[in-house]
Amino acid sequence: KKVLIVYAHQEPRSFNGSLKDVAVAELSRQGCRVTVSDLYAMGFEPSATRKDVTGALSNPSFFNYGVESHEAYRRKALSSDIVEEQKKLQEADLVIFQFPLYWFSVPAILKGWMDRVLCQGFAFDFPGFYDDGFLKGKLAVLSFTTGGTAEMYSKTGVRGDFRYFLWPLQHGTLHFCGFKVLAPQVSFGPEYASEEERRGMVAAWAQRLKTIWEEEPIDCSPPWYFGP
Amino acid sequence: KKVLIVYAHQEPRSFNGSLKDVAVAELSRQGCRVTVSDLYAMGFEPSATRKDVTGALSNPSFFNYGVESHEAYRRKALSSDIVEEQKKLQEADLVIFQFPLYWFSVPAILKGWMDRVLCQGFAFDFPGFYDDGFLKGKLAVLSFTTGGTAEMYSKTGVRGDFRYFLWPLQHGTLHFCGFKVLAPQVSFGPEYASEEERRGMVAAWAQRLKTIWEEEPIDCSPPWYFGP
Repeated sequence: KKVLIVYAHQEPRSFNGSLKDVAVAELSRQGCRVTVSDLYAMGFEPSATRKDVTGALSNPSFFNYGVESHEAYRRKALSSDIVEEQKKLQEADLVIFQFPLYWFSVPAILKGWMDRVLCQGFAFDFPGFYDDGFLKGKLAVLSFTTGGTAEMYSKTGVRGDFRYFLWPLQHGTLHFCGFKVLAPQVSFGPEYASEEERRGMVAAWAQRLKTIWEEEPIDCSPPWYFGP
Repeated sequence: KKVLIVYAHQEPRSFNGSLKDVAVAELSRQGCRVTVSDLYAMGFEPSATRKDVTGALSNPSFFNYGVESHEAYRRKALSSDIVEEQKKLQEADLVIFQFPLYWFSVPAILKGWMDRVLCQGFAFDFPGFYDDGFLKGKLAVLSFTTGGTAEMYSKTGVRGDFRYFLWPLQHGTLHFCGFKVLAPQVSFGPEYASEEERRGMVAAWAQRLKTIWEEEPIDCSPPWYFGP
């Protein structure tokens, strides 16, 4: 099996770094081929611009990013950093996104990976989205750390059920591209946890990865998601 | 009154550009002082990195972005591009975010503006969040365009009620920083609309802006938001 870990933290020795490292170790131990896209270390470009298309634009006088990146994908004219990520993604059976929650979402550098890599023609088309998205057959899991504690992210907590803010990512992005989404791995408030609790959270992730290939995807469709 | 428009589109002649232009025109006509942060034109940096702190780090051997940016804000050591945006924001009575929806959220370049500009100490602190966030007294409105039609974004539509994906932005980000959030201005599917319909959507935004100062903020708290 092949695994891609898209990792977005600036500090190698961070808690996110530990979660990434333990995933590499456990999945490698299983015999998987693991690739890491370390976005900050790569200096990954987050902004969707003209530079993403090599050569001429299909409409040089009016820049429409969606149209141009779709067209560039078809004529193999996307910039090399995007092509490289698309190759890694194409080969992966499982994609793990490892990041700290920034404003109830992914950090901008990871949002930029989604904006630029998951382009029309490659990840989806019309038709060819949700269950028919072009990345179908692949598994995805969001593994992230939060600033707040688990209580804050309960349905009645001040920040609301954490599943609310996963909707744009899990349903709107991953499911849209055809991924089967596994339950998120949420490590709550590592900054406020004891060293022992932090070790426990890392160990829990390693333990889960031992049997992750047997997991059933979650249902991230609206009625269940936002039901009472 | 002072207005800041944070604008994220690559093409000046785009529909988003028209919505931005009409807002500048109408608000200037009212006598407001309008400032535009044109993120792509500015080459705004989206990634939260070491470069956001000038001079020494408080912990050079372990980079924690949240801690370092908070500390840098206090000792006035944030990078000049962040300081510039914070000044504009500090002066504004109303902030308009104008963007095309990318993956049920803001484009990465605008996410990066939120990640970097809305730092602890400036936009919020503990205590000092949600109704007590440091940007209280200011109004915010999300004005965005979608790829899909209005029907797709209904509660029973394939993409779910559009208010679902506004939760991380309106509640998790803007309300968290103390903003009073006005109803979003959603321009559905301009790419598939007729020229006349597009003109109608631009005119509707200009019309709304005539009386925007009299609007009541929306309630973006959980029970109402996700209720039946």
